[in-house]
Amino acid sequence: MKNILILGAGKSATVLIDYLLEQAAILDFTVTLGDLDAELAAQKINGNNRGKAVYFNSQDTTIREKCIAEADIVVSLLPAFLHPVVAKDCVRLKKHFVSASYVGDEMRALHEAAVEAGIILLNEIGLDPGIDHMSAMQLIDEVKAKGGVIACFESYTGGLIAPESDNNPWNYKFTWNPRNVVLAGQGTAKFLQDNTYKYIPYHQLYTRYDILAIPNYGEFEGYPNRDSLAYRKIYGLENTATIVRGTLRKRGFCDAWNVFVQLGMTDDTYTMENAHVFTWKMFTQAFLPGNAIDVRQALANYLGISDTVILDKLNWLGLFDETPVFEYPDPTKLYSPAQILQHLLEQKWTLAPGDKDMCVMMHVMDYTLDNVTRRIYSSMVATGKDEVYTAMAKTVGLPAAIATKMILTGAIKKTGVVIPVTPDIYNPVLKELADNYAIQFVESTITL
Amino acid sequence: MKNILILGAGKSATVLIDYLLEQAAILDFTVTLGDLDAELAAQKINGNNRGKAVYFNSQDTTIREKCIAEADIVVSLLPAFLHPVVAKDCVRLKKHFVSASYVGDEMRALHEAAVEAGIILLNEIGLDPGIDHMSAMQLIDEVKAKGGVIACFESYTGGLIAPESDNNPWNYKFTWNPRNVVLAGQGTAKFLQDNTYKYIPYHQLYTRYDILAIPNYGEFEGYPNRDSLAYRKIYGLENTATIVRGTLRKRGFCDAWNVFVQLGMTDDTYTMENAHVFTWKMFTQAFLPGNAIDVRQALANYLGISDTVILDKLNWLGLFDETPVFEYPDPTKLYSPAQILQHLLEQKWTLAPGDKDMCVMMHVMDYTLDNVTRRIYSSMVATGKDEVYTAMAKTVGLPAAIATKMILTGAIKKTGVVIPVTPDIYNPVLKELADNYAIQFVESTITL
Repeated sequence: MKNILILGAGKSATVLIDYLLEQAAILDFTVTLGDLDAELAAQKINGNNRGKAVYFNSQDTTIREKCIAEADIVVSLLPAFLHPVVAKDCVRLKKHFVSASYVGDEMRALHEAAVEAGIILLNEIGLDPGIDHMSAMQLIDEVKAKGGVIACFESYTGGLIAPESDNNPWNYKFTWNPRNVVLAGQGTAKFLQDNTYKYIPYHQLYTRYDILAIPNYGEFEGYPNRDSLAYRKIYGLENTATIVRGTLRKRGFCDAWNVFVQLGMTDDTYTMENAHVFTWKMFTQAFLPGNAIDVRQALANYLGISDTVILDKLNWLGLFDETPVFEYPDPTKLYSPAQILQHLLEQKWTLAPGDKDMCVMMHVMDYTLDNVTRRIYSSMVATGKDEVYTAMAKTVGLPAAIATKMILTGAIKKTGVVIPVTPDIYNPVLKELADNYAIQFVESTITL
Repeated sequence: MKNILILGAGKSATVLIDYLLEQAAILDFTVTLGDLDAELAAQKINGNNRGKAVYFNSQDTTIREKCIAEADIVVSLLPAFLHPVVAKDCVRLKKHFVSASYVGDEMRALHEAAVEAGIILLNEIGLDPGIDHMSAMQLIDEVKAKGGVIACFESYTGGLIAPESDNNPWNYKFTWNPRNVVLAGQGTAKFLQDNTYKYIPYHQLYTRYDILAIPNYGEFEGYPNRDSLAYRKIYGLENTATIVRGTLRKRGFCDAWNVFVQLGMTDDTYTMENAHVFTWKMFTQAFLPGNAIDVRQALANYLGISDTVILDKLNWLGLFDETPVFEYPDPTKLYSPAQILQHLLEQKWTLAPGDKDMCVMMHVMDYTLDNVTRRIYSSMVATGKDEVYTAMAKTVGLPAAIATKMILTGAIKKTGVVIPVTPDIYNPVLKELADNYAIQFVESTITL
């Protein structure tokens, strides 16, 4: 009887746990769910006779190795920096490994050893990265198989709030790790446009969005994300003149978020002295010249903002209020601007009970076949059930869960460090997502 | 006979070497000059019978320890990251140590051990840091001794080109390490203004300058530099409402340099793919949206620049030219935007034979005494002789050289990690700089 070890029982794990418990009954697996909070893990297993909850501490080598040794496959939902630690154990103990995180240098370095051990370290099999890779490669491979030549490939993903729960002026709520949202885009965006290299520094990123229309959902803003250049090789698009991967937000978000970036409020590299006695107005004033009484007007003057819609969004958050930043200030704790901003946003952008989120993905691809140039739009919108069974939890968890099942049943045979860009993986995973979970792409093609 | 070991024989060392050789004859010292290039060291010693040139490699522990063991004091002109390495040897071998660099955490950690060993690790004794500390503390201590209360302290320094050699549209040439000039200001500027904390992110820094007038030299631009908050404690200004330390540039520089910052051309965190085949126009275009033929106009549109003076400065550098970035491209080498920009600037901003540079310093201090509030302006301008005997080499090298002499003669008795903020050091050093080298401050006071 094959045993699946799931590491991490947090909110985002629910859909994945439920799927694997369900499959365990059908395919005769067992599921062990490990978490620092063993009680939380027990709640999630909820008495299922195929499941078992255990205390798991990634820092405790004995516990870590014992849990992994008893498993046939490990699904890691731990923070990304812990994946290489777990994956190294998996290589040594010859256990398969699955994660939804990006392959970093440490993970990549395990490839040969994993091949040697006859196991797979399957990563980037969530939403973004994950469904984006799979759906992109299905499109790309299909066009290439027909002999089409791809001139342009753009792909955008966003974790957003569904229209029925969209009731704040930012048209945004947190549907994944708030810290990652606050820090999103830091570094330099790199992409290729009409065979010209393009580099966007962080402080220009939120001014460089494009408008994209998603069928039935209206217009969105898409801005380039991280290093798109690396995907030429991964996607086999070495001769494609334009390649951009990006992030989607609702209309109006980027211009307003840009205020935080311009002020320096998303900086996480230093801590602010005396912030425990700050009011929100003082916090804002720390990034403005002078000491104007009307901080809203001072901010508008400083950044040249004449759009009251932007200022109203900041005002709605309370950034101009003379209320304390911390209700229970702890003078021994120091916070970065990004942490303080996150503290504010978490009070305003948290999903309420019953709120539905929405994951949106859009690929745009130009290709030429038989002397005709066409543009394909391929888009997916997944909506959550409520604030627990979110679209984010589904679209991140289900691909990883389906792949876990496929590895155990032998449907995925690859070994080494793998990401889901080949048809043996993307075809069955995308089919199951579409057939059983209505996570599917809508395609339209125009002739250019 | 006391032996002084000077590490580093580069251009900026000349004034320091000459001073110490001269003092060696008077005070019966010997000078050992160590450099990776022993021949360069020999040239600098120039047959002086008090001097000796040796091969020195800081990475070679045997050579490093042997040289230090034979010295009574070590003056390090090595790159700043090597100072703790040398200082650690000095503590173990009980030798004094002098540098003109900032005290970092590694250096600071040596304090107790240095006190124990009975030696001084004297740092920050150059121009900035160095003369700025000494002249600031002389002003501050004088006012405090009279019972004055200091409400505001601002201090600015710049390494610039003297008016008689100022013949380019940027009114700037490199008078110190070009790489440090290109990267200047990265991080966050922190200061206190009217008891309000102020934080300026790098991408706003060159828009946040003040205009300062220096007697006989006209107007300059001053922008905040690094962490001024730390100087409240160092300068004993814990109750001062405004404290700013900053950098001086000539008028018009900041607005033009800001273009590089806004575009992302000073970024040193990534390398640009294929840059070896770039033209300067392609380099510029990589930071702009689209692929406009008229890249000057595209840049003006992107950043909203209507001032042709700024665009003319960029044009003078050749940023819009279709000439290759590298004359002898090496496809195996990768460069960051900052390195490529530096490569351009070095072709345009290098001191020509006979060029004179200029170091400018300005303190502005408000204080109240006997119910009268006054503002002191205290400024210093030092001009170089030529492109070798620069004002920068003088103002960095002489304070370190004078202090070295004073340590050997017992005039400086302190031990541990020390910076020159006490009268036992600043009074004699400032007096010798003024009396013998005309490096002196001009003071004026107004009643507010």
